[in-house]
Amino acid sequence: MEKLREVLVRIEKVNFSLAQEVQEKLDSLTKPRGSLGRLEDIVKRIVCITGNFHPKIKNKVVFVMAGDHGVAEENVSAYPQEVTLQMVYNFLKGGAGINVLARHIKTKVIVVDMGVAGKLQIANRKLQNFKDKKINYGTKNFTKGPAMTRDEAIKSLIAGIEVFEEEHRKCKIDLVAIGDMGIANTTSSSAITASICKKEVKEVIGRGTGISGERLRNKIRVIKKALRLNKPNSEDGIDVLSKVGGFEIGGMAGIILGAVSKRVPVVIDGFISSASALIAYKLEPKIKDYLFAGHLSEEKGHKVILEYLNLKPILNLNLRLGEGTGAVLAMNIIEASVKILNEMATFKEAGISEE
Amino acid sequence: MEKLREVLVRIEKVNFSLAQEVQEKLDSLTKPRGSLGRLEDIVKRIVCITGNFHPKIKNKVVFVMAGDHGVAEENVSAYPQEVTLQMVYNFLKGGAGINVLARHIKTKVIVVDMGVAGKLQIANRKLQNFKDKKINYGTKNFTKGPAMTRDEAIKSLIAGIEVFEEEHRKCKIDLVAIGDMGIANTTSSSAITASICKKEVKEVIGRGTGISGERLRNKIRVIKKALRLNKPNSEDGIDVLSKVGGFEIGGMAGIILGAVSKRVPVVIDGFISSASALIAYKLEPKIKDYLFAGHLSEEKGHKVILEYLNLKPILNLNLRLGEGTGAVLAMNIIEASVKILNEMATFKEAGISEE
Repeated sequence: MEKLREVLVRIEKVNFSLAQEVQEKLDSLTKPRGSLGRLEDIVKRIVCITGNFHPKIKNKVVFVMAGDHGVAEENVSAYPQEVTLQMVYNFLKGGAGINVLARHIKTKVIVVDMGVAGKLQIANRKLQNFKDKKINYGTKNFTKGPAMTRDEAIKSLIAGIEVFEEEHRKCKIDLVAIGDMGIANTTSSSAITASICKKEVKEVIGRGTGISGERLRNKIRVIKKALRLNKPNSEDGIDVLSKVGGFEIGGMAGIILGAVSKRVPVVIDGFISSASALIAYKLEPKIKDYLFAGHLSEEKGHKVILEYLNLKPILNLNLRLGEGTGAVLAMNIIEASVKILNEMATFKEAGISEE
Repeated sequence: MEKLREVLVRIEKVNFSLAQEVQEKLDSLTKPRGSLGRLEDIVKRIVCITGNFHPKIKNKVVFVMAGDHGVAEENVSAYPQEVTLQMVYNFLKGGAGINVLARHIKTKVIVVDMGVAGKLQIANRKLQNFKDKKINYGTKNFTKGPAMTRDEAIKSLIAGIEVFEEEHRKCKIDLVAIGDMGIANTTSSSAITASICKKEVKEVIGRGTGISGERLRNKIRVIKKALRLNKPNSEDGIDVLSKVGGFEIGGMAGIILGAVSKRVPVVIDGFISSASALIAYKLEPKIKDYLFAGHLSEEKGHKVILEYLNLKPILNLNLRLGEGTGAVLAMNIIEASVKILNEMATFKEAGISEE
């Protein structure tokens, strides 16, 4: 808890007073004013976050946080629980969607076991891309009581902070993305979103891995039951996390807190990682201005979260895979915006007539 | 004309019968079905266009086509005409927006003088990135008569085809983007769009480089006058191009025809390059299925064109720079989609339980 408090007090407000100077530089570049639209907004915020007028994005890392959910036994997912563990191996072999996209965007993948139900056996040579922060063998079924203890919730947040700090110490990270893996974690994320954003369950529910009809109705009943039983205190992020959250969700919230406390911008991915941002936001609202919404997911509840946090997604490609896939694609756009600021010629340099 | 006819007859229908097989492959990969949304749609179309089930995107080229417009003397742009020529030098020095983004996405930039008003002096060492296809020193002011002769319109189309073919012969191009530079070319593009899509001028007009108020009203009057005077035949792409088009617009339409006739997919950029797609479409409607809309521009008329061609933009970043900037950013997403198909592990390979 000491560690968590220490990080929370270190988080500063983003210094938006720098934006004007960046805009003046952007307006001196050889293009009509404002014609690079969101690229200009993005790089302005990068400067305000980092305090660096010549920001560089060299080291990019996506943390893929994996954890299991007791509520999976309520038949809320199209896949069996063992898929979480199997996918961790897939991440480490480089065969998953996030691996392909991260290679494409030149981003390092770090896989973290935050609470996979089974025992992982990881070969030594793969340990550089893997971190064992297992809090427990999956959460408890939150239709029968809280998903985890308050102590476990705090531990998962601290584990996330540590994961970030360990990697940041090794190679100064310039841009972070977070991604998730965990069968049944859209169920947990819907419960978190309904609670914190004060919405009806039906407004924040989606198809997850691809369920419909009776299974979707069952998912709604499960979430309603969990909220009724556990009564999470929506003003207390740790309470919400412990009542209806997941270990990987706590871990992602921890990554956000760790990164933000070092003024490193964070790209959130889809519904699950955005639910983790809600938890982090409830612990320290200042984090919001450090976040970039990588994309708008197909999961209905995602839009609710982005509106709540007042974030505009960079991409909208109808993705609903998670793992950080949308966030990593968006990193490429963020990097492009930074290069615009650093590399474009000014009207003066190019000898071009101005308006 | 012979050359143009020869290319037009070579254009084949995209073979959509391959899509089913690609979808089956995509469904065997370690992700919930359809969860990569538009990435799946994009790679399916790439396979159908190229006929290659293992498509590779290695050589990417953006052609930046420059030309001047006589109508610039009607005070329709925020910038003086000499900026077109000055920007060509900027492209060749690598200082423009498109240069920065093309370097970022590892795409070659070829700059083409299709009809810049002034004489360009290009150093020898820059000639590898430059092509001189000047049809004339700018078009004529189309409020006083046609922008160019029918012969010039055909020449500009053939020049575009040649530009593509020359480069394709050198290094087999896998993916093409087109971009524009030409002061006053949103005025020309609005006229083309109003004519071909049969819309009121006010529905297809935008701020261009950044005009407003009286200048914007003037721009509307100019376009209305041009359409009334020249009466372009909206069913004849060459007629529309010659009456109210531009040399760079003809050039881009030629690139599309050249690329499509070799089954190379083309990424169009904003309003101007999309207006060129309208010209190409009127010459051969089959080209439509080879096009990817890189992004949705801020220019109002752009949406009208994309709806007309039934194309869904990949990005929506409020760009309005042209030069191919949005198209090049989208190329990176297209490349990502191809890698998903080629590199992701299947459920079987990864030993993962299926639904």
